Amino acid sequence: PYLAAYSSLGGSSGREWLRPSDNFIPRHIGPAEEETQDMLQVIGVESVEHMIEKTVPENIRLQKKILEEPIGESALIRELDKLAVKNQVFRSYIGMGFYNTLTPEVLRRNILENPGWYTPYTPYQAEISQGRLESLINYQTMVCSLTGLEIANASLLDEASAGGEALMMMFAASRRKKNTCYVDQHLHPQTLNVIRTRGRLFGFELIVGDPSTWDFENSDLFGAIIQYPGSDGVVRDFHPVVAKAKAAKVPVASSTDLMALALLEPPGEFGCDISFGSSQRFGVPLGYGGPHAAFVSCTKPYQRLMPGRIVGETKDAQGNKAFRLAVQTRETHIRREKATSNICTAQALLANIAANYAVYHGPSGIKDIASRIHLMTSCLVNELRNQGHVVNGGKESPFFDTIVVEPKGIPDIKERLLKNRINLREIDDTRFGISLDETVLEEDLKDLMGVFSPSGTMTDEEFHRATEIPSPCLGTHARTSPFLTQQIFNLYESETEMMRYLKALENRDLSLVHSMIPLGSCTMKLNGAVQLRALTNQQFANLHPYCPTEQAQGYHEMMKELKHQLCEITGYDDISFQPNSGAQGEYAGLCAIRAYHISRGQSQRRVCLIPASAHGTNPASAAMAGMKVVNIKMQEDGEIDFDDLKGKCEKYADELAAVMVTYPSTFGVFDETISEMCAMIHEHGGQVYLDGANMNAQCGICRPGDYGSDVSHLNLHKTFCIPHGGGGPGMGPIGVKAHLAPFLPSNPIHADVNDSFGPITGSPFGSCLILPISWSYIKLMGADGLFNASAHAILNANYMAKRLAEHYGVLFKGHSGLVAHEFVLDMAPLMKTSGVEVVDVAKRLQDYGFHSPTMSWPVANALMIEPTESEPKSEMDRFIDAMINIRQEIREIEEGVYPRDNNVLKNAPHTKQMLLSGEWDKPYSQEKAAFPLPWLKKNKFWPFVGRVDDVFGDKHLVVSRGEDDTSLA
Amino acid sequence: PYLAAYSSLGGSSGREWLRPSDNFIPRHIGPAEEETQDMLQVIGVESVEHMIEKTVPENIRLQKKILEEPIGESALIRELDKLAVKNQVFRSYIGMGFYNTLTPEVLRRNILENPGWYTPYTPYQAEISQGRLESLINYQTMVCSLTGLEIANASLLDEASAGGEALMMMFAASRRKKNTCYVDQHLHPQTLNVIRTRGRLFGFELIVGDPSTWDFENSDLFGAIIQYPGSDGVVRDFHPVVAKAKAAKVPVASSTDLMALALLEPPGEFGCDISFGSSQRFGVPLGYGGPHAAFVSCTKPYQRLMPGRIVGETKDAQGNKAFRLAVQTRETHIRREKATSNICTAQALLANIAANYAVYHGPSGIKDIASRIHLMTSCLVNELRNQGHVVNGGKESPFFDTIVVEPKGIPDIKERLLKNRINLREIDDTRFGISLDETVLEEDLKDLMGVFSPSGTMTDEEFHRATEIPSPCLGTHARTSPFLTQQIFNLYESETEMMRYLKALENRDLSLVHSMIPLGSCTMKLNGAVQLRALTNQQFANLHPYCPTEQAQGYHEMMKELKHQLCEITGYDDISFQPNSGAQGEYAGLCAIRAYHISRGQSQRRVCLIPASAHGTNPASAAMAGMKVVNIKMQEDGEIDFDDLKGKCEKYADELAAVMVTYPSTFGVFDETISEMCAMIHEHGGQVYLDGANMNAQCGICRPGDYGSDVSHLNLHKTFCIPHGGGGPGMGPIGVKAHLAPFLPSNPIHADVNDSFGPITGSPFGSCLILPISWSYIKLMGADGLFNASAHAILNANYMAKRLAEHYGVLFKGHSGLVAHEFVLDMAPLMKTSGVEVVDVAKRLQDYGFHSPTMSWPVANALMIEPTESEPKSEMDRFIDAMINIRQEIREIEEGVYPRDNNVLKNAPHTKQMLLSGEWDKPYSQEKAAFPLPWLKKNKFWPFVGRVDDVFGDKHLVVSRGEDDTSLA
Ligand SMILES: Cc1ncc(COP(=O)(O)O)c(C=O)c1O
Ligand SMILES: Cc1ncc(COP(=O)(O)O)c(C=O)c1O
Ligand SMILES: O=C([O-])O
Repeated sequence: PYLAAYSSLGGSSGREWLRPSDNFIPRHIGPAEEETQDMLQVIGVESVEHMIEKTVPENIRLQKKILEEPIGESALIRELDKLAVKNQVFRSYIGMGFYNTLTPEVLRRNILENPGWYTPYTPYQAEISQGRLESLINYQTMVCSLTGLEIANASLLDEASAGGEALMMMFAASRRKKNTCYVDQHLHPQTLNVIRTRGRLFGFELIVGDPSTWDFENSDLFGAIIQYPGSDGVVRDFHPVVAKAKAAKVPVASSTDLMALALLEPPGEFGCDISFGSSQRFGVPLGYGGPHAAFVSCTKPYQRLMPGRIVGETKDAQGNKAFRLAVQTRETHIRREKATSNICTAQALLANIAANYAVYHGPSGIKDIASRIHLMTSCLVNELRNQGHVVNGGKESPFFDTIVVEPKGIPDIKERLLKNRINLREIDDTRFGISLDETVLEEDLKDLMGVFSPSGTMTDEEFHRATEIPSPCLGTHARTSPFLTQQIFNLYESETEMMRYLKALENRDLSLVHSMIPLGSCTMKLNGAVQLRALTNQQFANLHPYCPTEQAQGYHEMMKELKHQLCEITGYDDISFQPNSGAQGEYAGLCAIRAYHISRGQSQRRVCLIPASAHGTNPASAAMAGMKVVNIKMQEDGEIDFDDLKGKCEKYADELAAVMVTYPSTFGVFDETISEMCAMIHEHGGQVYLDGANMNAQCGICRPGDYGSDVSHLNLHKTFCIPHGGGGPGMGPIGVKAHLAPFLPSNPIHADVNDSFGPITGSPFGSCLILPISWSYIKLMGADGLFNASAHAILNANYMAKRLAEHYGVLFKGHSGLVAHEFVLDMAPLMKTSGVEVVDVAKRLQDYGFHSPTMSWPVANALMIEPTESEPKSEMDRFIDAMINIRQEIREIEEGVYPRDNNVLKNAPHTKQMLLSGEWDKPYSQEKAAFPLPWLKKNKFWPFVGRVDDVFGDKHLVVSRGEDDTSLA
Repeated sequence: PYLAAYSSLGGSSGREWLRPSDNFIPRHIGPAEEETQDMLQVIGVESVEHMIEKTVPENIRLQKKILEEPIGESALIRELDKLAVKNQVFRSYIGMGFYNTLTPEVLRRNILENPGWYTPYTPYQAEISQGRLESLINYQTMVCSLTGLEIANASLLDEASAGGEALMMMFAASRRKKNTCYVDQHLHPQTLNVIRTRGRLFGFELIVGDPSTWDFENSDLFGAIIQYPGSDGVVRDFHPVVAKAKAAKVPVASSTDLMALALLEPPGEFGCDISFGSSQRFGVPLGYGGPHAAFVSCTKPYQRLMPGRIVGETKDAQGNKAFRLAVQTRETHIRREKATSNICTAQALLANIAANYAVYHGPSGIKDIASRIHLMTSCLVNELRNQGHVVNGGKESPFFDTIVVEPKGIPDIKERLLKNRINLREIDDTRFGISLDETVLEEDLKDLMGVFSPSGTMTDEEFHRATEIPSPCLGTHARTSPFLTQQIFNLYESETEMMRYLKALENRDLSLVHSMIPLGSCTMKLNGAVQLRALTNQQFANLHPYCPTEQAQGYHEMMKELKHQLCEITGYDDISFQPNSGAQGEYAGLCAIRAYHISRGQSQRRVCLIPASAHGTNPASAAMAGMKVVNIKMQEDGEIDFDDLKGKCEKYADELAAVMVTYPSTFGVFDETISEMCAMIHEHGGQVYLDGANMNAQCGICRPGDYGSDVSHLNLHKTFCIPHGGGGPGMGPIGVKAHLAPFLPSNPIHADVNDSFGPITGSPFGSCLILPISWSYIKLMGADGLFNASAHAILNANYMAKRLAEHYGVLFKGHSGLVAHEFVLDMAPLMKTSGVEVVDVAKRLQDYGFHSPTMSWPVANALMIEPTESEPKSEMDRFIDAMINIRQEIREIEEGVYPRDNNVLKNAPHTKQMLLSGEWDKPYSQEKAAFPLPWLKKNKFWPFVGRVDDVFGDKHLVVSRGEDDTSLA
């Protein structure tokens, strides 16, 4: 049988029966076996194999068996536990932008471990996303308040790449006219290196040096980047520097640390235009490097150049306050290669944790935490000096939590550290960096001081003396302005209140715990609970990204296996885990292609061919990689116009760097000519970038590395089960063929760049903490399971397409009349007959308790539906019923029963307030509005606000909370 | 200041500043410092100390400081981790009713780790509890189906005590006329010992022997108890035994194992009247003994004798199907000493896990699991025999998962087991019991077989051979009837569906994540997330209750400390952790008192004085302990009638065993004369049982052990933060003064009873897995924190009482005009003026999103309100506003604006279906019904069904799901 049936008494053959019955495959795949048969019948094929034959071109179908047998859930847990103990959690005082932190347990339990928070999609459907939106605007408010700037975004991928974004903002502000930027030598090395990568691709001149020596007046700069406090911990006085920059009209961006800003004058107050950094230490585990939410904040003039998503306030159709994603005109789906940045998936879940860390602690709590860190550091400095060591080069410079020490007379310092299981930053042979954080308990500080004392340990009395009279060492930089003054940060001191707040926000949002989220191209599949175990396992969660590799053996073993698995699945030869999103994978992949061409003396190859239907990140990433985007036409049937492609290949033969294609295409079709296309590109000296977003339709069926692609990103949050987290994390490792392997991203702190174009992320292995999710998924599924998943993704899509085709037009199909794993419904005709627009259908679906499919992409006035393999038939049937009923509601408009401008679609979504407050004055009944299908009476999800007004919000842009703004009011 | 303020920069004195800012105390206590001041002002006292002086009699106030300084959350986690590693998880094949199990991860995450499931109260308010009720009726359905009987309850405390309940059911069925019961010698020893305890107190003759020799005809029996399969694993043929019993009209109860019943003919089919057992192995962790849900099922004739709660079907006011607690007339709050059993808190949370394990696996999954266990056992038997060992005494008896082996020629067997980290049941010097379970992987079976092989290990080939041809060994007992045929067990194969089902059920239920649950006497306080960490830590969760003590050092260290803490807090000298609930604590405490009297030659002392206002469990427990209940009168002012007490003491001087008093009283008052009362009881030779349910008002303020009590139970789920789990778990350890210590419950498997009256629970330390919760709480709070918690419990109650007193009558106050930690509102006058009854107010509160306070107990027509210390002022204010608004709604009826029988109270609760389906025909608006206060528009909790019809349900009793009965339909 198609899904391996398990032993039952007497009916077992061989030793199959010995396998435990915790087989994950039927848990992952929605339809049961009988349902699968029914569905095959509906679409008119005999078997799953037959369906695959009809859908996927024969010449690319995989012939060999990949991977190993699947293991059950309990065996997986054992393997994971074995890996966990191979990771050793030392006390890490390495710092460098990554700090130990205490995740408040109430947040861990109710956000990080709660599918209500980690399974929703990016909040584009604002009415059913008010919880996340409120939380993200809290995040923005916190960033604005701490950095002293006016505008902040709802997170970026990591601090180092946020530095790259700041660089590009300033470049864009110069109207791309200038070429030079000053960069502070005290940036964290990884930030510097990632910024260098960005600059290299654009041919910028980055002048790295000591800000106090900068000569703004006589340089033609588009910007300057400083770090505050410096990577060495020193808090420098940037007033004069910024004043000089201002005089020369050069913008200044500052890397900074949110915790330090509780005590230090913020960058916005000493005149910076932009600030960026990480919010990791606000409760987000280290995770050997990520995922963490980075931020950028800026002054108003830089608002339209802000990368990433921004949440803003607006009103709904009834005039009530509502939140929604603001000024989307900056984003890639609108601006494509002209977008400020290629960011799509960001770090929403982690931003939500950081924001709620601030809500939970409030300003006085944060100040207490920062003060304690600082005072401990101050005691440490005194003690080290008393012991005769040289601290901060012997200077009395101000610091917050980080110092540099040159120990004197302790030749065995490294052994002592090892014995005490302590990691310090090894700056060079004689100097160590030490950064303290909120997790340091008295016993830890005592051990640390002990390491530097003559005997190697400290007595209680000595420690008592050393911690008696702490005194602040902030110099003249102490913060005087209040922060987090908004009511939301001053409301919830008790855990009960905090828990209720988190639950209230959760319950405003539609997530996978409620119903399917059939977003074409976005693959909202199951995030299996067992896969997520590593996330809150201390031995995975508490590793510093720069700790010695010996301490991370569990991680490295896991990554080695995952790399092997992904190569097997894709047909590639090597993988880099560095990219933190699909878009960042595109950027990394294109950079690898550029580096490859350069290595062969072909630096002129910069043209990147991209079909008009490509995802917006494709052109945006090409632009970021310094390429020139040339569009390829599409045919009527949704396939790439082969002739146009051929013509462009010939036209740009000398300059051709790459083509970017998505496969199966963004229209949901397996193009028949994919191998030919790849061959043609190669003939013309180009490389093939195959966007792997749709890899979930290919596992075990066909492999990009086999049919001609050179590089792909793999959106782990699509195919490989990373939860989408309401807009992130994601992850976009790239697979490459062997010839590109030397050009993969390099280690961010070991700056020897070699062939590579450099690092793209501050952490060597990106968002490492979530890799065990994908590793787990692949081990649980094995070859057959992955094949079945892809096959069911295709089957589910075809089942829905077939049933809906009687009511709506299905736009693109393969030559056999089948679609791939997603399909496009045409809504354009309805506009003419009834005035109903795509957005009306999307909002009306909310009344039925569903999240809309992808709206108007890749085709305008259409819905793209992707059920994923995880949805059971019953749920698809519910969705189909809803769509059919909506068609009937549209017919009522067509037939004149209800006016074109006052009907259940135009007025959707209907909130409980609309329905129950005051007099009911609509031409249809309240019941029709609320319960258009009978099951809604039991299982109703209420949109929290009425239809949001985007135009109003963008006109009156408000991106942070008002002072008196509470949540439930 | 009252709550220690933490360091801030420059303002720190001494070394306070070094403490991390993760102080739990302000997280636990609802009101912030400023709010505390405001509230003190409202009630008109100067300070918290002043308030305590006015509330608590001076002569009992604690003068010394108890306990240590509190520690922060992160320090607590470190301590817990240190304990965890001191527990060693061996592979335990000990069996005896406790088995390793795989908790499906989707259940662990969404039930066990989710406050939405673990914080609701027992589902007495049915309309806002439909999720748990559905899940519990699923549990009953599963038990009925697997055991082949018609009626099941919604869980009991553990298998052994369920055996005691079965004994008492049969005794009751004999109209208490007979005295003798047969008991199978193959019962698990702990079950036998717990049943013996029960019998001893009633003077039963329990004849323990081999059922095949039983002579029913010639004995005057009230019942017989068998075990199937036996503790030795043998599946015996009970057809002839039961036939003989039936002929003699003797009921038979069978202890049994749900997993075995997937393969074996169920007790109901071979004629048993009653069955009992544990559902632990359906996904509930071992936890060193509990908490686990036990079950009892029976035939219809025993229905009214069923102990514990039963969920039944009924209809709501609109005629829709609804669930609710059925036939409550059996329960202690109605029947008092005549109740079938003293059970109150049971094991709802664990029953929900077990039920959902069945929903998740379905009949074929469960059959697969059972088959695999059985076939592995069968292979093991073959292999052991091949190796020359004696299995099952050399007999070919049928078995399921358990066997007895007498190894031959392996003198170092114990060392081998140790080396392999394997625990077997050590039956005697030569024989071992082995029970396999679903967690056994191939590698485990191989290791186990290896231990018994000549070389001590097995090769892969040998293992392969040994597992090649498994054959079932069920003899003639194979089950032929289908089970779990109801649709609910055949719906949710995929994890996505299962997750949605769990979330759908969760979201029907009002829990602490939504709003306060101000139940007088039930103390629904915060269950801090950090306190719950041990629950899902494998090193706490996976220990077998009978594993060697060396393997449980972490537990024992924790229990030693907890015992010390609890003695410090209560003034007692010793503690027993065995009781699994408050009621079981009462039973254990009264048994200790009886044993004490007996030890002094005073076995005639059997009279137990109990105030009329006592909780129903008090008289029920006294009856169970074989005591005679004599009621004490109450005064008008809610205090015990001292003269009546005195008179009864004198009257029963010779027979006086004990008095049971609750302190502060069930009316919420600190009786002034408590020490005098205790002294008087002692003078008359009696002992004082102080019901510790209200200990949460006394911590750090006064101690029962100081003012004269001899024994108390401590409801850990009230004072010490065990989550109530929707009706359990709870726990009721008892504290005793030194003279009673020898009479504490004894170890359930080491039958040397000594002074003790015996064990009361099958696990030596009761529900051990949840003890770390209370331990954590006490460490986090320290002396000051606990004092503050009790003080705030009193402050919050007084604040609410004061504010509500302007609108309702507050019934009882102390002489200073203050109440204790709870208070009683009189609703009786409203009945006259408006026809509104208490229940109408309770149901109307649901429309406001609140759970009703305790209804009509301890005073009829009244509401008893206990806010707890964890509720913030804002939440109390919301509740007060709701109550005030309801008073206004009542006034509208009084004034004739709305009819007495058709108004917002009588029609409450209002569901969304009522409000939005069809025409609205009530005399008030939909808005008034749904949103009587403005904040409800944002934050509305919808009752899932209309007012339930109890009478209808009890008339047409249905306690399991219909075949076609799905959830959301
Ligand atoms: C086809 C395609 N390519 C690339 C991306 C970008 O991936 P990410 O959101 O991880 O940056 C997406 C995201 O939806 C996509 O659909
Ligand atoms: C005063 C009192 N005593 C005893 C009990 C019984 O405790 P348990 O429910 O844990 O059996 C309760 C429970 O509500 C109670 O309120
Ligand atoms: O965020 C995504 O577009 O998947």
